[in-house]
Amino acid sequence: MNHSPFRNASERQADREQKREAVLRAAVRMFNSRGFHTTSLDDVAASLGVSKPTIYHYLGNKDQVLLECVTRGVEQLRAAADAAHALPGTGFDRLSEFLRRYAEIIMDDFGRCVIRTADEQLSEESSLRFRALKKEIDRAMQGLIAEGVADGSIAPTDVKLAGFTLAGALNWPARWQKADGRLAPHEVAAQMVEILMRGLAPR
Amino acid sequence: MNHSPFRNASERQADREQKREAVLRAAVRMFNSRGFHTTSLDDVAASLGVSKPTIYHYLGNKDQVLLECVTRGVEQLRAAADAAHALPGTGFDRLSEFLRRYAEIIMDDFGRCVIRTADEQLSEESSLRFRALKKEIDRAMQGLIAEGVADGSIAPTDVKLAGFTLAGALNWPARWQKADGRLAPHEVAAQMVEILMRGLAPR
Repeated sequence: MNHSPFRNASERQADREQKREAVLRAAVRMFNSRGFHTTSLDDVAASLGVSKPTIYHYLGNKDQVLLECVTRGVEQLRAAADAAHALPGTGFDRLSEFLRRYAEIIMDDFGRCVIRTADEQLSEESSLRFRALKKEIDRAMQGLIAEGVADGSIAPTDVKLAGFTLAGALNWPARWQKADGRLAPHEVAAQMVEILMRGLAPR
Repeated sequence: MNHSPFRNASERQADREQKREAVLRAAVRMFNSRGFHTTSLDDVAASLGVSKPTIYHYLGNKDQVLLECVTRGVEQLRAAADAAHALPGTGFDRLSEFLRRYAEIIMDDFGRCVIRTADEQLSEESSLRFRALKKEIDRAMQGLIAEGVADGSIAPTDVKLAGFTLAGALNWPARWQKADGRLAPHEVAAQMVEILMRGLAPR
């Protein structure tokens, strides 16, 4: 244990990370609830009782903050796709698991931000990056569907169209789920995935 | 036939309607392709070779133009729900028909605008009206699902959640379908509806 009043380098690093996380979490929640255009970094700073330069220090300008938020969301989706891809079982099983996690992530802060952010809200450079990230998720989704079609556990289908259909259905809770609130996110996820996966099952 | 160089009242009315339609169509296409915030009524006027006061004359200010665009879209959806509701057959059949038309409308100009318009882009008053209109469509969708559940042609399901799942999937083409373009709207509609309706069929 370090009882010195001066923090060592790793403590300072951990402290910095913790503060950065707090700023990012406050920002994403405000973007999601108020909208990006109507939220200023001053608002985010005020909600944390810090100054705007503090936000800049940890995360940069508003465009950089938003890009970081959506990148987090996409990374969670990508991790879910990778984890599903590594599972045993059929393609149907792996896709089901991915969709379940996908829905849950979309109802959480960073995933919600991915869906609520329009490309044109980002700078040109950040928007290019965001679109590239989203394309990776589309490809991962389509890859999992194609594996199921290949092993016969999913009925033959237009993989790209099916992927957009699934993503469309699962992305929507980012817009309505908070307003409802009767069901917990994992219940919403489970019921949506059941409807969607039965639609893809072999006849 | 009226060969007078002066138009009579009904001709003037028809002419006015035609011009109003042209302005509305130009506006909705520009909102959809460029985004509402980045489109000015000057741009819309310029694309038609008319002046901005002409746009005001036919449709009012930008908020009124957008409200008119989304109202058209919602009215098309409502007409589709009413038509489907009046069909013979099972609840499953009626819902399928509604979803097919819903998807097609969403890929057309006014339906696309319904999906691409965020509530906060409208004035407070227009936004209230827009939300009320969308709620009617949600209710119509849920009503058709409930009828199918009641007559046994649709598997028991959480009607509200199923409705949002279907709407989510079908709303998504408003965001991606133009970018793809391999498939005609009616093909996209047919394939999406097949996946979704198979997911709702009794086991």
